[in-house]
Amino acid sequence: MNISTQATADRKLVVAIRELSASQREQIRAAAAAAGLSVHFFESPQEALPAAREAEVIFADGTALAGAAPALRWMCTPYAGVEPYTAPGVFASPQAVLTNSSGAYGTTIAEHVIQVSLMMLRQNEAYQQVVKKREWIRNLPVRSLKDSRILLLGTGDIGQECAERLRAFGPASLTGVNRSGRHPGGSFDRVLPLADLDALLPETDLLIISLPGTPETYHLINAERQKKLPDESLLVNVGRGSVIHQAALEQELRAGRLFAALDVFETEPIPEQATLWDCPRLLITTHIAGNMSLPYTVKRITELFLENLDRYAQGLPLLRQIDLKKGY
Amino acid sequence: MNISTQATADRKLVVAIRELSASQREQIRAAAAAAGLSVHFFESPQEALPAAREAEVIFADGTALAGAAPALRWMCTPYAGVEPYTAPGVFASPQAVLTNSSGAYGTTIAEHVIQVSLMMLRQNEAYQQVVKKREWIRNLPVRSLKDSRILLLGTGDIGQECAERLRAFGPASLTGVNRSGRHPGGSFDRVLPLADLDALLPETDLLIISLPGTPETYHLINAERQKKLPDESLLVNVGRGSVIHQAALEQELRAGRLFAALDVFETEPIPEQATLWDCPRLLITTHIAGNMSLPYTVKRITELFLENLDRYAQGLPLLRQIDLKKGY
Repeated sequence: MNISTQATADRKLVVAIRELSASQREQIRAAAAAAGLSVHFFESPQEALPAAREAEVIFADGTALAGAAPALRWMCTPYAGVEPYTAPGVFASPQAVLTNSSGAYGTTIAEHVIQVSLMMLRQNEAYQQVVKKREWIRNLPVRSLKDSRILLLGTGDIGQECAERLRAFGPASLTGVNRSGRHPGGSFDRVLPLADLDALLPETDLLIISLPGTPETYHLINAERQKKLPDESLLVNVGRGSVIHQAALEQELRAGRLFAALDVFETEPIPEQATLWDCPRLLITTHIAGNMSLPYTVKRITELFLENLDRYAQGLPLLRQIDLKKGY
Repeated sequence: MNISTQATADRKLVVAIRELSASQREQIRAAAAAAGLSVHFFESPQEALPAAREAEVIFADGTALAGAAPALRWMCTPYAGVEPYTAPGVFASPQAVLTNSSGAYGTTIAEHVIQVSLMMLRQNEAYQQVVKKREWIRNLPVRSLKDSRILLLGTGDIGQECAERLRAFGPASLTGVNRSGRHPGGSFDRVLPLADLDALLPETDLLIISLPGTPETYHLINAERQKKLPDESLLVNVGRGSVIHQAALEQELRAGRLFAALDVFETEPIPEQATLWDCPRLLITTHIAGNMSLPYTVKRITELFLENLDRYAQGLPLLRQIDLKKGY
């Protein structure tokens, strides 16, 4: 038996992403071979569990996989969120490194943000009720992104892709807020540090939240900060549900003061009995802004993984590596 | 009695636009005084009818007003569409000139176009049904403006404002089509003449129609041209309903081939018994894309009128003057 073949067979890459196309699988197979890895495809993380035992690299999502892979050196999740991995003892392998696919979701999430913002500003729900009743009402007051004061809380890939599109709508201002206040590039008029948030909220017509769920962001938009937003302003959350004090927001909505379009929630799925389901002035979507149902997103996830696979083969530091203590 | 006051009192400007704010009315009053006109405000064209008899200028919409104003020299409609005025004998005054407010609606209509396009591409209707049932489904396939081949039929204010916003979404192409093929400026990759339409349709994922209703545009998008569009492509019409052969389109939608978001229809209101109301793959809105329910639009309408009022006072040719024979 050829020794190099033997070595290749021993180093395993386990991939369990159902959405990958045939040509994407072929790209991964070729790149893995070049890196000295044999690739094993599965249709779900569950199905991949037995193979995880011998995996050196995993390209899939799931803490069960992480816990079942004692020889793991690198795990790449196709998602951006990594909260479940930050609990102690998730990884069976002490040398495992986690990377995420942050950067793949900006396009699809930005389209969601623009869509739901316009739906809320332009009274889509009320107008669709008109159509359902076969009526012909045309004069409901609507609002516009034009001349709106927009605050983007979170200036990563998602915030930047949102800002780029929002710029074309002629807003009054596009303000980014992040931890450091450093301008990450892109279409923001200005980027300010989190310390300025309280002063900015009263001048915000549209607040777009794309923050990860971390101890630092937990209930960042609490009742007090919600009250600082002007009457009729609109919150859009595509980050994590834990960033908003949800019960306080429901009160603001039921009081007829704010509007919201939420894609993420403190508990997902939303419990069937939750009063949130029929809360007025709220557009609920079922955490769909940034999943893999858009082929372009899967293409980007694959590109990002292949970029890191090449670095892995060369012994270079991986991109998008997660600090499991910080959670991002 | 002061003669100049007398003279002012004799030259009347009749304004009947309910949506005008107090400060916009004040602006008009001041500009009218400077032009030697006394201004009379009404809340509806109907209410303004008796005053039309003595009007030199009318700023309102309605052929009844045009027919009731024998001394009329200039009528400015706050809308863009002028079809009703093109019938013979509409104007009681042989010297009357008609201008429209084309240019005021691009912002609001472009926001509508982006909103409904994203709603259709991202399966909004299906996802809202999920929410209505309190389910938690997340994996419906969605599509994107990113990498889409977009054809804008009509490259005036509306087409240009759409193109500017669509550009930020990273489409594969943004092709404008108009009568002459002349590039009007703006964000189009290219602008081609109407003669090229048939060749362009098979390469179109999203067709945005903003044409006026004229004999030339009547049923331009007939059954044959609809069939040239690829499967699953999306038509958005914010121009006039007469541009599309509506019965043929309903067939395409019911056959599960195309998608459409229509704001304008061959008959408005849509008759209550029309099968169109529950046609699949169709988003109906009640001609709301470009009305005066957005304050920014009323602001623009006022600015455009004041610009022309100044020209009128100076004896300069008016802008946006309609050729009643051509209909635009």
